[in-house]
Formats: sequence, C-alpha cells, structure tokens
Amino acid sequence: MTPEREKRLNDVLDKRQPNLTVVLENVSDPHNISAVMRTCDAVGVQDIYILNTNIGIHKKWGAKSSSSAAKWLTIHQFTDAKACFEELRKNFKKIYTTHLSTDAVSLHELDLTESVALVFGNEHAGVSEEIIGMADGNFIIPQVGIIKSLNISVACAVSLYEAYRQKNNAGQYDKPQLTGDPLLALKEVWGMNDGNRETAIGDEEC
Amino acid sequence: MTPEREKRLNDVLDKRQPNLTVVLENVSDPHNISAVMRTCDAVGVQDIYILNTNIGIHKKWGAKSSSSAAKWLTIHQFTDAKACFEELRKNFKKIYTTHLSTDAVSLHELDLTESVALVFGNEHAGVSEEIIGMADGNFIIPQVGIIKSLNISVACAVSLYEAYRQKNNAGQYDKPQLTGDPLLALKEVWGMNDGNRETAIGDEEC
Repeated sequence: MTPEREKRLNDVLDKRQPNLTVVLENVSDPHNISAVMRTCDAVGVQDIYILNTNIGIHKKWGAKSSSSAAKWLTIHQFTDAKACFEELRKNFKKIYTTHLSTDAVSLHELDLTESVALVFGNEHAGVSEEIIGMADGNFIIPQVGIIKSLNISVACAVSLYEAYRQKNNAGQYDKPQLTGDPLLALKEVWGMNDGNRETAIGDEEC
Repeated sequence: MTPEREKRLNDVLDKRQPNLTVVLENVSDPHNISAVMRTCDAVGVQDIYILNTNIGIHKKWGAKSSSSAAKWLTIHQFTDAKACFEELRKNFKKIYTTHLSTDAVSLHELDLTESVALVFGNEHAGVSEEIIGMADGNFIIPQVGIIKSLNISVACAVSLYEAYRQKNNAGQYDKPQLTGDPLLALKEVWGMNDGNRETAIGDEEC
C-alpha cells in the first residue's frame, strides 16, 4: 500500500461514525441495497445490518461481494429479528423505524447526534410489526405531494444526510470517532496494519 | 371530482413552492428522471426544467407521460441552454450547479429559502461548462467515504430535502406560496376549476 493510499484510507477512517447505523429489514431489491451502501459509505456509516427473515442470507453481500461500497462496510447479516435486535442493543442507544403511524415524528425532529440505528423495511410491506414492537420510536420523512412514495434508497439517503448535517454541526466529523481496538480491527480488514497486527493482538490480550 | 378529492388536491397546492426548481441537464436515464420527479412532488416543487442539448426532447415526458409524478408537475423542456437560462432568470433569483470545484460550497451552507434553481448534470459528464459559466455558484453534497459517487436521484433528493427543512423552518409551508393566476392556471390543468374558468380568463383580461 502506498503512503498516499494509506493516508486516503486513514482520512476516511477518521470520519467513520460508529454511533450510527442502518438496518434493512427484508429489503429485496439488490439495487436498493447497493444504493444504501453507497450512501452509508458517503456519510461515514461503517456498519450496516441486513435482516432477512423472509429470504435468507443474501449471497451477494458475502465475502466476495460485487458491490464496490460493500467492500468498505462491515455487513452484519441476520435471519432472526430478535438476534438482530440483541446485537443492535449492544451497540446503539436508540432504534427508530420508518413507519407511518400516529406517533411518528418528523425526521428533522430526531436527535441524530446520539447513538442511533435507523430501520428501513421491505419495499412493499414496510417495517414488520415484530420490529416496530421492539423499536424505540417511529419517524417519517415529511411529504407534501400527491404521490406518497419515496424509493427506499432515496428515503435512506435523506435520513442519513440529515444525520450528517446534525453530526457535522455537533463537530462529530472534526475528530475521529472510531478508535482503539475497533479501529485496529478495521484497519486489519482493510489491509492497513499488517505491521501492527502483533501489537493489536497484544492489546487484546492485556 | 369529489369534494374529498378536491380538498386533497387543494392541500397539495397549498404546499407547492414556486420559488424552488430543479434543472436536469442531459440526464439520460429515464429512471433517474422519474425518481427526481417523485421527490419534486414530495417536497412541493411544481416546476421542473429538462434541458437536453444532446438527445433532444424526451418523448416520455410529453403530454401522455407514463410517470405518475409527471402528471402533477409542470415540465419545461429545452434543447438550448441559453433559452433555458433566459426562462430560469425570469423566475428564479439564484441558479446553482452541483459541480466539484474549488469554489464549491457545501449544500448545507446554501440559503435555500430564497428563490433558487438547482442544476444537476449528466450521470457521467456532470454539468457542462456552458451551464457552469452562466450559473451563480456551485455546491457539493459533502462526502467522507471511499466511493465518491452519489446517484443523481439520491443527490437531488438530499438537496431537495435540505431545501424542505430550511423552508419548513422558515414557515414557507405554513401558508400558500402559489397564489393568483398561476394557481388558477394550475387548477385548470388539474381539472379543478372548470367552474372558475371564466373568472380566471376574466382576471387575465383585466
């Protein structure tokens, strides 16, 4: 790896936001998933949760993924909603679904500077009742038009860029948020710290 | 038209924002144009400018458009950049392009509560030099990832929803922005004011 390439990757790592994630529940169109991944990468979301209770693990997002953005994300795949939420609860304080309901708040009213997971549902069925029951709240992207339908990749991008705006205002892109062992582990995955591997393992053993 | 339907359409008209528009320069993928149109409708953008200096008028967006959102938008098609800008200058104070350049400002620094046209360019070539030379400034959607490419429909949605957020904060959705003859003309197109047609024409004759 050239020093320029290493600097470029380090610059990206310095902007990664470990307290923000996206959960895709039974999103079936691979193009939608690819588009969401590109936006995740663009705003610094490293971890993405793909929950498929209907169709099983997407082979496409395995180790040899063909999506260029997928290579740079940490993809967590689940086929069980409870197991997915157990993992989410370990890492995120709030879990919000995008679901039309009387208690839904506008996207712009959410505090997206805190530790948050945003759940987007299937293209047709939306977020499942099971997931809604386990989440902390619902939000909607305001719409004032005649056609009430935003593509999921558009809805996700609008949400993630509102998070970007809030986090940027709060200075969360000004200093690295991803540090310590998680940073070292990711550097290893990205092929950046072969020389540091022993140190990293030594740290874990302490 | 049922009273319920008329009320629904009037509610939409009350939220239309005549001081905001989108210009698509040589955007070639009809799916991208359709997605942009859906987002325009969703945030209350009524007018959209489609400038095709390369490929001519899109037949798809003519009178018998198959896009459900297109039916509810006012589509201005041009094949000449100067003619397009002359028309834009009559209706909008500022014209901004999305173009990577040293003088580009971040989307979130733009004042989108004022009268603004946002120009998005071809999927590969971007906005042309001719258009950049005639515009008032450039903006970029900030990106902190490895892959530097947002789909045009995603970029447009992120921009329009930032406009929505600013305009909503400024109260521009709280009272009708589209009024007078332009409102009556649009109601006629939407089949809402057959009974008012004579009044409307009378108004124009005064």
